[in-house]
Amino acid sequence: MWVISPKDIEMNILIAGGAGFIGSHLTDVLLEAGHKIVCVDNLCLGSENMIKHHFENPCFSFCKQNICDVEKLNEVFALNKFERVYHLAANSDIQKGGKNPSIDIHDTLETTICILNAMHKHGVKELLFASTSAVYGDKRERLQETAGDLRPISYYGGAKLASEAMISAFAAMNTMKVSIIRFPNVVGPRLTHGAVYDFIKKLRKNPKELEILGDGKQEKPYIYVADLIEAMLFLPFETGMNIYNAGVESATTVKKIADIVCEEMGLKGVEYKFTGGSIGWPGDVPKFQYDLSKIHSAGWKAKHTSDEAVRLAAKATL
Amino acid sequence: MWVISPKDIEMNILIAGGAGFIGSHLTDVLLEAGHKIVCVDNLCLGSENMIKHHFENPCFSFCKQNICDVEKLNEVFALNKFERVYHLAANSDIQKGGKNPSIDIHDTLETTICILNAMHKHGVKELLFASTSAVYGDKRERLQETAGDLRPISYYGGAKLASEAMISAFAAMNTMKVSIIRFPNVVGPRLTHGAVYDFIKKLRKNPKELEILGDGKQEKPYIYVADLIEAMLFLPFETGMNIYNAGVESATTVKKIADIVCEEMGLKGVEYKFTGGSIGWPGDVPKFQYDLSKIHSAGWKAKHTSDEAVRLAAKATL
Repeated sequence: MWVISPKDIEMNILIAGGAGFIGSHLTDVLLEAGHKIVCVDNLCLGSENMIKHHFENPCFSFCKQNICDVEKLNEVFALNKFERVYHLAANSDIQKGGKNPSIDIHDTLETTICILNAMHKHGVKELLFASTSAVYGDKRERLQETAGDLRPISYYGGAKLASEAMISAFAAMNTMKVSIIRFPNVVGPRLTHGAVYDFIKKLRKNPKELEILGDGKQEKPYIYVADLIEAMLFLPFETGMNIYNAGVESATTVKKIADIVCEEMGLKGVEYKFTGGSIGWPGDVPKFQYDLSKIHSAGWKAKHTSDEAVRLAAKATL
Repeated sequence: MWVISPKDIEMNILIAGGAGFIGSHLTDVLLEAGHKIVCVDNLCLGSENMIKHHFENPCFSFCKQNICDVEKLNEVFALNKFERVYHLAANSDIQKGGKNPSIDIHDTLETTICILNAMHKHGVKELLFASTSAVYGDKRERLQETAGDLRPISYYGGAKLASEAMISAFAAMNTMKVSIIRFPNVVGPRLTHGAVYDFIKKLRKNPKELEILGDGKQEKPYIYVADLIEAMLFLPFETGMNIYNAGVESATTVKKIADIVCEEMGLKGVEYKFTGGSIGWPGDVPKFQYDLSKIHSAGWKAKHTSDEAVRLAAKATL
């Protein structure tokens, strides 16, 4: 699907959340590049299906466990001399998290704290953290990495920004090399939730009408997962905490997603039923756009537009 | 010491960390103003000595417990119909926290999460959170509330910024009224740690020489605790998350603190032994200055300069 040249040095890498939607793609590519991968995942959103094609690979091992099981996590760190951690373990479903703050406090923030504690204890210095546009809160201007007055409006965004804050402290106190990548909406093969996934599920049940949360005018950038993985592998690990928005210049409305899904399913005349209001759910940021000059200057750019990403994801999910 | 007019409405108030240095002063003033106060404190840094003068007051109750004991905290919330929470429970000793990240993760961040969960569960909407200049990290420009790219360099600063991030999410999801006040160094009667406290302790042991961490040129604003309490009572609780720096325009070097303490102790010719380097300890921000235009425009200004605050604190500690 995309080409990554093998690294000069083979590394021992932990992927937290490695059986999830994005984590499993990262697992594929880092194994392909010749690294030794340990995947830790509680299979809460992830699934064995996403990684079982690696079960015979001697460079791959999978631990089904909760990152927050500190004793077990320390065993994993003690057994494997990790040189780098990719931390993607989180509740990535903002809508679900809105119903109970404990979900994001535990799955999104506490996982980060447990990872940081284990890295500190075992002297692991390199971290890539999967952050999110949700840390910015509901801002109308193009989001820059250095933007001030960040006020997340969802538990998910709060837990991710809180994670960044703790990472900042650990990075400074322990001279770590940290990349923080703030993801927009990510789509592609192996989706576990989100608009594309939900619409397909609903239309399979009833191909005549489609309930759409909000007024359908919510408009966000969708990145194709392969493009995002490229960004994750492209950015160097440098001393300190290095924050990048990774995304696309274009954006797709929720109504447009419905149109694309219907087209790809060959459905015509589907009646859209909007639940109304400008947001899809409490904590939803209905519209945002990244300033991507930092990551573009660094030399990375997404290959697919937002609409293309949505269409590819729909095709892959059908 | 200062005059606060009683509130129109008597309120049921929880002060988390109410037996600590700042919390106990707040307890004094809010009781004086006619409110019903429940103080929860684990007496880790606080002490019964600081609040025992209220033990006979029927408007005051004290629970010696850890905020993170969720079951007990929920009992306290269920028993008292709180209308407002002042959350000052934290490990306020940055230097101590630097030795073990678990201290600030538990005492500074988890306390906030437990408070937020309890407020959410029991429908309490008003919160004042004691934050810190340390959330800004090591910046040389005057610190504005809306400054971007906040990168705390201590576990303490990280845990406070992480707390702010979670508060932002809870405030937005539950339409809360939150005041966040970012404190500078605070001094006054009942100090439990810090330069003034340490210097007096050291000079009592050996009045001939004084070890000073760093090169003595670290220069920070010190606010007198009574001034800070005034700010806390002055600022209105408004919907959303309202962030204020509270501080003084002036600043005091560590060497000047030593000079003032020696003067107040009547010691002459004390030999200063500097441990060297520009910072006092890992995670120390050696120099900062607030932009105070927001809180000054709101109508509050500190009565004492930084040097005056240090001198009054030295007098009170002797």
